[in-house]
Amino acid sequence: MLITVSKNISLEDLGNLESYLNKFGLVLELIGNSSDLLYKVKGDTYRIDEQSILTQNGVKSIKRITPLYYHASRMYRNQNTIVDVDGVKFGDRSLVFIAGPCSVESPNQIDSIASICKMSGAKLLRGGAFKPRTSPYFFQGLGYEGIDILKDTGLRYNMPTVSEIVSVDQLDYFVNNVSLIQVGARNMQNYELLKALGKTKKPILLKRGISATIEEWLLSAEYILSYGNPNVILCERGIRTFEKSTRFTLDLSSISVVKQLSHLPVIVDPSHASGDYSFVSEMTLASVACGCDGIIIEVHNDPKHALSDGKQALKASKLASLINKCNKIKEVIGEDDEL
Amino acid sequence: MLITVSKNISLEDLGNLESYLNKFGLVLELIGNSSDLLYKVKGDTYRIDEQSILTQNGVKSIKRITPLYYHASRMYRNQNTIVDVDGVKFGDRSLVFIAGPCSVESPNQIDSIASICKMSGAKLLRGGAFKPRTSPYFFQGLGYEGIDILKDTGLRYNMPTVSEIVSVDQLDYFVNNVSLIQVGARNMQNYELLKALGKTKKPILLKRGISATIEEWLLSAEYILSYGNPNVILCERGIRTFEKSTRFTLDLSSISVVKQLSHLPVIVDPSHASGDYSFVSEMTLASVACGCDGIIIEVHNDPKHALSDGKQALKASKLASLINKCNKIKEVIGEDDEL
Amino acid sequence: MLITVSKNISLEDLGNLESYLNKFGLVLELIGNSSDLLYKVKGDTYRIDEQSILTQNGVKSIKRITPLYYHASRMYRNQNTIVDVDGVKFGDRSLVFIAGPCSVESPNQIDSIASICKMSGAKLLRGGAFKPRTSPYFFQGLGYEGIDILKDTGLRYNMPTVSEIVSVDQLDYFVNNVSLIQVGARNMQNYELLKALGKTKKPILLKRGISATIEEWLLSAEYILSYGNPNVILCERGIRTFEKSTRFTLDLSSISVVKQLSHLPVIVDPSHASGDYSFVSEMTLASVACGCDGIIIEVHNDPKHALSDGKQALKASKLASLINKCNKIKEVIGEDDEL
Amino acid sequence: MLITVSKNISLEDLGNLESYLNKFGLVLELIGNSSDLLYKVKGDTYRIDEQSILTQNGVKSIKRITPLYYHASRMYRNQNTIVDVDGVKFGDRSLVFIAGPCSVESPNQIDSIASICKMSGAKLLRGGAFKPRTSPYFFQGLGYEGIDILKDTGLRYNMPTVSEIVSVDQLDYFVNNVSLIQVGARNMQNYELLKALGKTKKPILLKRGISATIEEWLLSAEYILSYGNPNVILCERGIRTFEKSTRFTLDLSSISVVKQLSHLPVIVDPSHASGDYSFVSEMTLASVACGCDGIIIEVHNDPKHALSDGKQALKASKLASLINKCNKIKEVIGEDDEL
Repeated sequence: MLITVSKNISLEDLGNLESYLNKFGLVLELIGNSSDLLYKVKGDTYRIDEQSILTQNGVKSIKRITPLYYHASRMYRNQNTIVDVDGVKFGDRSLVFIAGPCSVESPNQIDSIASICKMSGAKLLRGGAFKPRTSPYFFQGLGYEGIDILKDTGLRYNMPTVSEIVSVDQLDYFVNNVSLIQVGARNMQNYELLKALGKTKKPILLKRGISATIEEWLLSAEYILSYGNPNVILCERGIRTFEKSTRFTLDLSSISVVKQLSHLPVIVDPSHASGDYSFVSEMTLASVACGCDGIIIEVHNDPKHALSDGKQALKASKLASLINKCNKIKEVIGEDDEL
Repeated sequence: MLITVSKNISLEDLGNLESYLNKFGLVLELIGNSSDLLYKVKGDTYRIDEQSILTQNGVKSIKRITPLYYHASRMYRNQNTIVDVDGVKFGDRSLVFIAGPCSVESPNQIDSIASICKMSGAKLLRGGAFKPRTSPYFFQGLGYEGIDILKDTGLRYNMPTVSEIVSVDQLDYFVNNVSLIQVGARNMQNYELLKALGKTKKPILLKRGISATIEEWLLSAEYILSYGNPNVILCERGIRTFEKSTRFTLDLSSISVVKQLSHLPVIVDPSHASGDYSFVSEMTLASVACGCDGIIIEVHNDPKHALSDGKQALKASKLASLINKCNKIKEVIGEDDEL
Repeated sequence: MLITVSKNISLEDLGNLESYLNKFGLVLELIGNSSDLLYKVKGDTYRIDEQSILTQNGVKSIKRITPLYYHASRMYRNQNTIVDVDGVKFGDRSLVFIAGPCSVESPNQIDSIASICKMSGAKLLRGGAFKPRTSPYFFQGLGYEGIDILKDTGLRYNMPTVSEIVSVDQLDYFVNNVSLIQVGARNMQNYELLKALGKTKKPILLKRGISATIEEWLLSAEYILSYGNPNVILCERGIRTFEKSTRFTLDLSSISVVKQLSHLPVIVDPSHASGDYSFVSEMTLASVACGCDGIIIEVHNDPKHALSDGKQALKASKLASLINKCNKIKEVIGEDDEL
Repeated sequence: MLITVSKNISLEDLGNLESYLNKFGLVLELIGNSSDLLYKVKGDTYRIDEQSILTQNGVKSIKRITPLYYHASRMYRNQNTIVDVDGVKFGDRSLVFIAGPCSVESPNQIDSIASICKMSGAKLLRGGAFKPRTSPYFFQGLGYEGIDILKDTGLRYNMPTVSEIVSVDQLDYFVNNVSLIQVGARNMQNYELLKALGKTKKPILLKRGISATIEEWLLSAEYILSYGNPNVILCERGIRTFEKSTRFTLDLSSISVVKQLSHLPVIVDPSHASGDYSFVSEMTLASVACGCDGIIIEVHNDPKHALSDGKQALKASKLASLINKCNKIKEVIGEDDEL
């Protein structure tokens, strides 16, 4: 962080500025003395709100160099982070498929879908048990029973599981019964939930909020990281724009941007972005082509009769062919690293 | 709700459709029989997800007439709802000012601000004790101590208080110590929190999410209403757009739209929308001119040294003149009802 | 403009940098010499693209101080510009109403509407003759015949006229027959049209593009100003956002922002923003309350049968009462200047 | 188009409705008679504005079935349109690369870039001669001289050329000297320009406006088609959203949506969307993976010293490897058509 200070600053005000920074463990070093005084701030500058420094007398401007999402940034760690979810690795240059229905509906439903997902090449099994629905009157999921069904099925097929948490009081049950805990888009800035997840060591799948900037998304990851949990996987799932022909606009550039700024793995959810199964395959292929670490996709053996979001579910029978193509694309783009 | 059914539907499929609707307490009545069969659905149609009906065999299209946010709508209640906050009424054609600092910082700070707010004509005292901050490292508020300070000050000045809740486990403390519980924009779709608030009878101030449509906002209100709490006040606070010269774009049309669709009171927060005190007065005047029921505004006796959001705080000394102008505008627009 | 240059820059590269700037009439002045060399650039810096300077060897960073829209900015001219449209003044602290139908349909239609507008207090008469319609098949206006009808009616009622130009080849006719030439939102970045208008001295009403930032809007004004025409009135008419309950989101904060950045008058079009007459009155009142210099509003004596945009037209009979309220609000907000 | 009419409509009003529709060559056919009268409208219904029908007495609602962009839609023509640009075909399941600099700067510059583009596998040569720049003071292109240089170079390398037109009066020169005439994003709704281009038979590259919905984009294509020119290629180039880490948000779902709605070829411009060369390769690969018909990409032999937009230009030396990967991806996705 660089601070420009007026040459007319009084010694008292300069002392106050130094004291204020000292409270955050920060120290000033003079590096320029021409029309203004230019100071470099040494220490963990991401810990301090620059607005609060600007309120100090004599301070003219501030330039932040270390990003606020320091622990999520490549400045903190240049090497890619690999997150291990019960043996399946995200971020190690492989391509991981997470597949399953929107909602856990019954043991039979999950079993038949899991069977196809497994055979098609998916490594993890997804299924919602607590569904955040826009209307209070709509099916809200099977709750803990859903988690149990998902866990049993996962064990039978040797597939780690993914399910969404919606409240801090569910934490213990999720830690004990779900392999990868998903934070949905609506809760990306539910900081109390993020703090609680940060105190565990469980892998967390952090979806981007529908109108979160990439910086805000990384700052939500920083909440989890800063509380001690390094196992964060990011998930792009579309942002809200004026265009209404798809439910959200999948922002695939965010993959490249995140890869440049952060060491965390990033996957894509093409199903929620599209809201329509007919676009899901193309968006999956595109996501792989631009370098994501995995895909989380909704599949259903009988989309027409799904209890939620059937319209966006890929027919399970199409999954194998799609994964096959994705793997070939992954080979093409990985041929050299220079691109 | 109107359902168009194919003339070729089998008796079995028609029976299945009726059974499915019956489960939600809904009944079909044939009202048209020409190229297709047209049915009216009788009962609480807002309780059913139309997607789930579309999955039934033979169903061609559905037209919803009752809005999903039924209890928040004028269809449920045409008369304006009046919410009473410890004696101060919102929605009764008066104009209520809520004022105070972004964060509770100390007893002295709150006392001196409250004193000016009271004298200037504000009826409620606002102050954040739990601050949802984008960075985990920034000042997160004084917590329960802040709530206590706010309550004491409010009692001394006879001003009901407003503060933001961020987690379900704070509920009891808020119910006992805060007059009007605020749900912030980031938590507008934290449904577990909304459900919990719906089980109380406390007045709730529900801010619009930064990218929530008006329909989604009313559905979040519906969560609270449907759990039994009718005391919801809506608050427009700006939406996220491409324009960056203000922090958010205050969507004042939403006041008129909400007034048309809903019986709930709606107020405006010009401070968070602008992010800059120099636009706050104009946006306050504009909000009053288009018919809002109140204003929640950040004021500070020393904005330059505020611990958070000082940039957007109005100088407390300007508040009286602003409220005075607003009251005159309120008189002008209320002169007749025909407009 | 400040340029930071590396201390290691070669004399040759420094010479090249100076030569490059000289081509634009710019001169370097060394103002700092510590860790880097800091230069102030003297001259008309708005004339140069900072990207092109960044390509010069040795240049590390650039800070623009003079805005690119220099002639539209308060840096160029602090005093408010007053634009005179055939005797009616915009920007002199008065409030001007422009009213009329979306499209000129016939002499009788315009006459009866003009009569009401005039009596209601509107000073200018609007009417489209060339209508840019999203579909090629829809009514595109009466063309030059419409301009003639509008002109005749304006003369009869002593009302200057406003109409939209859509092509450079219409320029002469508009210059001779329209008092205030409107550039519509779709043409805000039709630079060839702006250049042509800049070579006249006619008053121009420049609408904001539906997704133009305020900076881009002022730069479009700069096109006109830089070609020699100082008579530009800006018009906010709503921006495109995700919210669909109104056709566009009226960005009233833009009034305050423009007033801070620019000396040009700015008016509001509440009709196109709302797309629904039932919100037009409230948005008009709000626009006046936040300090605009005028309103351009669609009115129709028979909105139901208007050939275009009838849904957003205010009934002509309501106009007088609305203008009356606006004038009272204008009085309230103008009571002192300190706010 | 279906029209629902009140059963209480008078014979006179029904007659007026029929007469009104007859003026557009449309005829009513009664297809339902239960609670309301339901009519099917026969004829070219895309020619009529449904708002204008809604103003007729007795009309209750309208449902449009034929899209307004009828000639651009698959309803008009299900088979893919193939546009031939001087022998290079777009839309025939091949993948066409258009490459070249943002601006034509000099014969030498174009020659050296064209040479690399040709060897790398690009089929068309792009280069701007008339540059629409946000600031009136920035380099606006070489004008007709630029067109001549581009044409000469194209002929030498046997590459058809692409350049942007910005005004109707340039039409003849473009028709005679440019192979594929580009309409830029800012002019997507410059209808006078579209009409003029529609009267030629030249291939037109129609970029999507930065905030155009897909429907509006297809309606702009309809302008060209309806005036008699069937040779339209669409180009996705990113839309404006709140996210600022890329200049625009590339909306790749639009490729799938357009392919579903329209028979026209669609290509992608990853350079303008990204605004940064470091994201261009990934976005190119993603675009190909989701099925576009071609890519238009900015390359430069010396991006650092480009006169415009250097930051987003790919180094020419990287182009061959990128095209090679794209062709392999094209093979993978084309393996079967069922996906």
